[in-house]
Amino acid sequence: MTENQIKKIGIFKCGNIGTSPLLELLLDELADRKDITVRIVSTGSKMGAEDVEEALPKIFELNPDLLIVISPNTALLGPGKVREKMSSSGLPGIVISDAPGKRAKEEIEEQGLGYIIITGDPLIGARKQFLDPIEMAIFNSNISKVLAITGVYRIVHQEIDRVIYAIEKKQKPDLPKLIVDLKTVRNRSELKNPYAKAKALAAYGLAEKIAEINVQACFIEKESQKYIPLVACSHEIAQAAARLAEEAREIEKYNDTVVRKPHAKNGRLKNKTKLLSNAVFDEDAIEKINGES
Amino acid sequence: MTENQIKKIGIFKCGNIGTSPLLELLLDELADRKDITVRIVSTGSKMGAEDVEEALPKIFELNPDLLIVISPNTALLGPGKVREKMSSSGLPGIVISDAPGKRAKEEIEEQGLGYIIITGDPLIGARKQFLDPIEMAIFNSNISKVLAITGVYRIVHQEIDRVIYAIEKKQKPDLPKLIVDLKTVRNRSELKNPYAKAKALAAYGLAEKIAEINVQACFIEKESQKYIPLVACSHEIAQAAARLAEEAREIEKYNDTVVRKPHAKNGRLKNKTKLLSNAVFDEDAIEKINGES
Amino acid sequence: MTENQIKKIGIFKCGNIGTSPLLELLLDELADRKDITVRIVSTGSKMGAEDVEEALPKIFELNPDLLIVISPNTALLGPGKVREKMSSSGLPGIVISDAPGKRAKEEIEEQGLGYIIITGDPLIGARKQFLDPIEMAIFNSNISKVLAITGVYRIVHQEIDRVIYAIEKKQKPDLPKLIVDLKTVRNRSELKNPYAKAKALAAYGLAEKIAEINVQACFIEKESQKYIPLVACSHEIAQAAARLAEEAREIEKYNDTVVRKPHAKNGRLKNKTKLLSNAVFDEDAIEKINGES
Amino acid sequence: MTENQIKKIGIFKCGNIGTSPLLELLLDELADRKDITVRIVSTGSKMGAEDVEEALPKIFELNPDLLIVISPNTALLGPGKVREKMSSSGLPGIVISDAPGKRAKEEIEEQGLGYIIITGDPLIGARKQFLDPIEMAIFNSNISKVLAITGVYRIVHQEIDRVIYAIEKKQKPDLPKLIVDLKTVRNRSELKNPYAKAKALAAYGLAEKIAEINVQACFIEKESQKYIPLVACSHEIAQAAARLAEEAREIEKYNDTVVRKPHAKNGRLKNKTKLLSNAVFDEDAIEKINGES
Amino acid sequence: MTENQIKKIGIFKCGNIGTSPLLELLLDELADRKDITVRIVSTGSKMGAEDVEEALPKIFELNPDLLIVISPNTALLGPGKVREKMSSSGLPGIVISDAPGKRAKEEIEEQGLGYIIITGDPLIGARKQFLDPIEMAIFNSNISKVLAITGVYRIVHQEIDRVIYAIEKKQKPDLPKLIVDLKTVRNRSELKNPYAKAKALAAYGLAEKIAEINVQACFIEKESQKYIPLVACSHEIAQAAARLAEEAREIEKYNDTVVRKPHAKNGRLKNKTKLLSNAVFDEDAIEKINGES
Amino acid sequence: MTENQIKKIGIFKCGNIGTSPLLELLLDELADRKDITVRIVSTGSKMGAEDVEEALPKIFELNPDLLIVISPNTALLGPGKVREKMSSSGLPGIVISDAPGKRAKEEIEEQGLGYIIITGDPLIGARKQFLDPIEMAIFNSNISKVLAITGVYRIVHQEIDRVIYAIEKKQKPDLPKLIVDLKTVRNRSELKNPYAKAKALAAYGLAEKIAEINVQACFIEKESQKYIPLVACSHEIAQAAARLAEEAREIEKYNDTVVRKPHAKNGRLKNKTKLLSNAVFDEDAIEKINGES
Repeated sequence: MTENQIKKIGIFKCGNIGTSPLLELLLDELADRKDITVRIVSTGSKMGAEDVEEALPKIFELNPDLLIVISPNTALLGPGKVREKMSSSGLPGIVISDAPGKRAKEEIEEQGLGYIIITGDPLIGARKQFLDPIEMAIFNSNISKVLAITGVYRIVHQEIDRVIYAIEKKQKPDLPKLIVDLKTVRNRSELKNPYAKAKALAAYGLAEKIAEINVQACFIEKESQKYIPLVACSHEIAQAAARLAEEAREIEKYNDTVVRKPHAKNGRLKNKTKLLSNAVFDEDAIEKINGES
Repeated sequence: MTENQIKKIGIFKCGNIGTSPLLELLLDELADRKDITVRIVSTGSKMGAEDVEEALPKIFELNPDLLIVISPNTALLGPGKVREKMSSSGLPGIVISDAPGKRAKEEIEEQGLGYIIITGDPLIGARKQFLDPIEMAIFNSNISKVLAITGVYRIVHQEIDRVIYAIEKKQKPDLPKLIVDLKTVRNRSELKNPYAKAKALAAYGLAEKIAEINVQACFIEKESQKYIPLVACSHEIAQAAARLAEEAREIEKYNDTVVRKPHAKNGRLKNKTKLLSNAVFDEDAIEKINGES
Repeated sequence: MTENQIKKIGIFKCGNIGTSPLLELLLDELADRKDITVRIVSTGSKMGAEDVEEALPKIFELNPDLLIVISPNTALLGPGKVREKMSSSGLPGIVISDAPGKRAKEEIEEQGLGYIIITGDPLIGARKQFLDPIEMAIFNSNISKVLAITGVYRIVHQEIDRVIYAIEKKQKPDLPKLIVDLKTVRNRSELKNPYAKAKALAAYGLAEKIAEINVQACFIEKESQKYIPLVACSHEIAQAAARLAEEAREIEKYNDTVVRKPHAKNGRLKNKTKLLSNAVFDEDAIEKINGES
Repeated sequence: MTENQIKKIGIFKCGNIGTSPLLELLLDELADRKDITVRIVSTGSKMGAEDVEEALPKIFELNPDLLIVISPNTALLGPGKVREKMSSSGLPGIVISDAPGKRAKEEIEEQGLGYIIITGDPLIGARKQFLDPIEMAIFNSNISKVLAITGVYRIVHQEIDRVIYAIEKKQKPDLPKLIVDLKTVRNRSELKNPYAKAKALAAYGLAEKIAEINVQACFIEKESQKYIPLVACSHEIAQAAARLAEEAREIEKYNDTVVRKPHAKNGRLKNKTKLLSNAVFDEDAIEKINGES
Repeated sequence: MTENQIKKIGIFKCGNIGTSPLLELLLDELADRKDITVRIVSTGSKMGAEDVEEALPKIFELNPDLLIVISPNTALLGPGKVREKMSSSGLPGIVISDAPGKRAKEEIEEQGLGYIIITGDPLIGARKQFLDPIEMAIFNSNISKVLAITGVYRIVHQEIDRVIYAIEKKQKPDLPKLIVDLKTVRNRSELKNPYAKAKALAAYGLAEKIAEINVQACFIEKESQKYIPLVACSHEIAQAAARLAEEAREIEKYNDTVVRKPHAKNGRLKNKTKLLSNAVFDEDAIEKINGES
Repeated sequence: MTENQIKKIGIFKCGNIGTSPLLELLLDELADRKDITVRIVSTGSKMGAEDVEEALPKIFELNPDLLIVISPNTALLGPGKVREKMSSSGLPGIVISDAPGKRAKEEIEEQGLGYIIITGDPLIGARKQFLDPIEMAIFNSNISKVLAITGVYRIVHQEIDRVIYAIEKKQKPDLPKLIVDLKTVRNRSELKNPYAKAKALAAYGLAEKIAEINVQACFIEKESQKYIPLVACSHEIAQAAARLAEEAREIEKYNDTVVRKPHAKNGRLKNKTKLLSNAVFDEDAIEKINGES
């Protein structure tokens, strides 16, 4: 691969979901991929139309070959504006969002964009009587662990990787159209032990329940004595979900069957299971590989 | 506060440390601060000079009132370039980095920048035979939990808040000059129960140990049979540290003494301890408050 | 109270929910109440119309003063027959059932019966490739712990106790009309520590999620490779829920604030909180007491 | 099997031990056995002679083909009366009881009844200053988990199944004569991993210790300040025992070696070990099977 | 106190029980007591008559003011010889042993020696198919934790301290005559929270159960397939007991009520409860104190 | 082996490290070795020159064939005197000490003695405001568990065994010269599962961190409000380390791969892995064996 083949991945973040904070790192976890660079522009926790208008041009100015927008509920005004601009830009684009984003599914398809809707990436308990920076960080830590171990982060980076490989081969990428719900997680799980998988599914089911309770707590209950117990409850579920996910991974450790898929320097995934063995290229990836590793 | 008083916080991220992924969210966890907007530009996991050169201008183009750069080892070439540009821009600037960044301390002071060096924000076990996107995410999840609960994230956002308040009052900000080590964590801990504090300190001590072992594993050991056990060991310590931190917070929950400091809409911190009580403005903050909450 | 004032409580069980196995014991946990006797007739795990027809007369022959029927989905044929007979008998009657029973709510009201519908008493993962006697017992053990600690069992026995007291005073009993959902559990919780309460609510929320997943696994998925992971997942959630509930009670133990309400010999509830203190009669119960304790 | 071959199992419960609440469910956990129906009559937590006299006839009126009585200490007056009636009825009968029931062993044999005496089904901490409905339910939950996982419930249902099969084949059943102590549990354990078995044995040993302490606490100590710590201690042991048992089962899950023996529709046991495999009929059961499954 | 008032404590160990390895350290945990020196002679794990004969004279040659012998079953030949020599020496002497030592109680009293018999210091699972140096060390670690936290080690050092104080005051010491069983532990517990105490008692009850099972496994069962599961089971109970004890102490930490009684330099006990408070002399010790601390 | 071939191992202890309390038991855990006797003389927790002078002759008077001294920091005056005497005695001698003992390494070599310096055998938090006999015992329990499971105790007894075998064969023993640090533990680990090994290494890394923090807390910080949180923190790390070690061993149990190496009666090590298999002589030991087992 020559240097001018390097593809640039642009990520625009507005507002935050559990998949947002580590998204760019999932694509180049060892910081040594030679086939891509990644650039991110973000409006932080806010996602208003004015935030988007000011910041969005910056990601276009960086001339990305692929654009990804990640936000809560992509059907809202701010994220909606991002999709419009992405769609009209003609660049390949992927929308990543949480359960309420399902409403925009058809619109996204019409816009010619791909999407990954993660039903188990739940609304945080955003109530001032409960959520401060520390509580927010702990919640994100727990959700990250759940999404990592259950395989959601794997799905996310593999879907994006697949698009990148197509772009590199100058093919029209087949953009992902994916609702990641409990069944998707079940079907795409890489966990070897069936009880590890059951625990991971349980963790994901819990994450879905968090969303349900937080919608009630954040948008319906008015009195603090009513909603505080509910947001506290949903964050306890987040902790329980993280523990279940961790337990699932421990099972795989106990059996030395943790699947690892690091990115090689050429961007392709290597694969290993036994900890002390060597990672090799994924079988179905091998034919495509002609660069360094 | 009128709208044109809104201050813009620019964050430039190159490479990743445990404080990076959630940094902007710490400043506006409820997405409703009226006194600031936050904009982030990032080069993802890479931090080379060329990454910096391309992306850095974008954050300046967004006209921030305060600039923050966060990266591993700020003494390296890429982050070093960022500091140079920040220094020559004349904007108030803060450098956040990990233990190896200590080397640049004097240089940073000469550059007129503030700094927060976090000795317990450890190098990840970045070996291709071990680290894949999932393992990376789990590590970050664990370190986030440690840094949140031990109080490091509190220190970080309070130091930045302090600078923002000064800018809002058109004062020359007193930029932070802070090495956050075990003693700092001990001295600034908000944990009420002394054993909770002891467990939090233990978690932070573990995080320091991770860094020590990963330096050995990533830069000194050559054979995979030698370094894999070490990076696996350091990530186990990360998990143990997260559990210890969690245990510390559980103690506070058991006693209903969790300190919460949410940002009010005017940007000042409210404060509460008993879960079902109401958050009120921090005593020493009260005199400064004249806006809505 | 003289001996001929002893009231007889008849319980008819057909099929099993998590509240069934211990129901009669909740009413007389120390086996020394002098105001009631309890008799139970049950058809075991089956709940067909023919089972009901054969066994139901036996409970009437025992001449109860109050009749309780407990079953899964009271809207089904078998349990429906029980309600008909109870209604036409003219005896005060209470129906206890799980979430699908909600459908029969209006019918029950028309029948003049009381009801306690417990949304967090979930369907078991009744698939032959998964459920054997041991797995069934473990699931019931976990659900029992959740329903006991979250306060559902307290609600159940207090509602029945209230009816018994009315019958003893020759008053027309005010039969319970109660959907026990997450909000009911929140509002009637006796847990003192707010985080204990949050964890108990979380446990109850998990129990609701189990039901949702098991409906999918038992009635919709056809292939064993699809439904086994789901029933295994739901039973893992049951275990996680039991642990959360246990954790909630541990908090109360840690603070020596476990509320205990043993039945006195006269059937009234005593009350104590500190473990080494003495139980006394419930304040609002005191005026009514004129018998021994 | 034709419908008129259906056998009816009558269970009479007076008072409660840890094996009582789920006994009938162990026989037909999926509620789809075509070879048996199960009917239960119970006097609840009380077990006096007058309770027995009133309720016992009901179970005979239901014309069972096999009678089972389960109670604490079968040597007491109430349960003793049940055995007398069972013996004189000429029906095949099985007595299930706890450790103090050992005293009646010879009497039971003379009565021509079978017995299963479970030394690890312990007396509850029945002191009014400690035991309320919630504490009672938690204790039963813990003991159920121990008896399920250690294999005691398996022994119980297999012994009864064996008798049922004999009756179906019109053979004189070989009634069980079994003291289930630590050695029995060791010898009949189905746990595959030797440490899982060791933990299960440990759980059972703990259950035996509970009984020892509760006898002291309930019958010997007079002052509440003396006996409360002892009953609280014994219930803590119950919790520890449940955790040990759970740990034992987790080991089997980790190795995907959980033995499952669901009842087929024809009443015979199927058997499976790997979670995603299919249950097949027990080898030694195969020759006997000619019905549907 | 002048230097020539320093008293010498002689400890003779033959064979090992859970109280042996740390015994001398309990008397001078900070190595700064000015009132005593401690000398130990030991025959290691062996306790034969010939071991005693060779090694015992050495402890007499060191001229102790008080002699302590600690061994398993003091009724055996080797330890019996030690007691004889101690008795005839005329020195104040204390025998520390485990449950089987109870047999020698009267003999010890006739010998004019004191004794502390610890019923919860259990026989190890000493079978060559199970016990190696590592398993032995883990068992001792677990038992140590139980004996420390339940208060047994406190009883031991306080009883010895009491004798030392008497010798220092030239009084005839009132030698301990103590069977430390579950009731002793209950009565002398320093744990403040009643559930902590219940868990500690549970841990001690478990330790008693270990002894019972190991006697069966070591002396009665002959086949390795029979005794291995039993010794493995008893060591699992040891681990469960250590966890229960640890949990008891955690409760005290959570409430900041851990009682600490360090030895002052003058040998008297100081006392503190809140971790950040200062230790002061025990109230009932105060009158006796005239030296430095 | 004839009786007069029995070798006598003399151990002199002054002061205490985590390896001290169980050292002699590691050599003869079943108390049935026929090839050695072990004699110990100790000065308890004190290690002053005067303690050594009085007690040391006793161990020489017992005529050992091999001498071992174990103490904290062997470079200090008291332990230094022991080494001098050992060196001039001409007996084979081994020094066991903790990290600060590294300073004396060259001196020990010049003295012709062997050494085992254990960097993860940490200084205790010896502050009177924190350490009492109970806290001391708990710390030792935790460190023992770490040193046992990580393999340090195995290294210690195997090194000593090796010397004993040489003496028995009348060869000049090759005395150990060993710094046991994280790499040694990694290289000599007997744990089969790589994650078990990683957790064990983590535990050992934590033990090293304890030492670092306690040096700060015991020798540098002066105010109790500064050092109490640090010693409390280091003891929390000890507890976390013990849990990690325990977890490592649990993994091996889960896989039935716990390596056991009991001493045979002839002193050679047997070896077994599966719990229910029979221990056999170590392969490389077999040729040397001609005695009973």
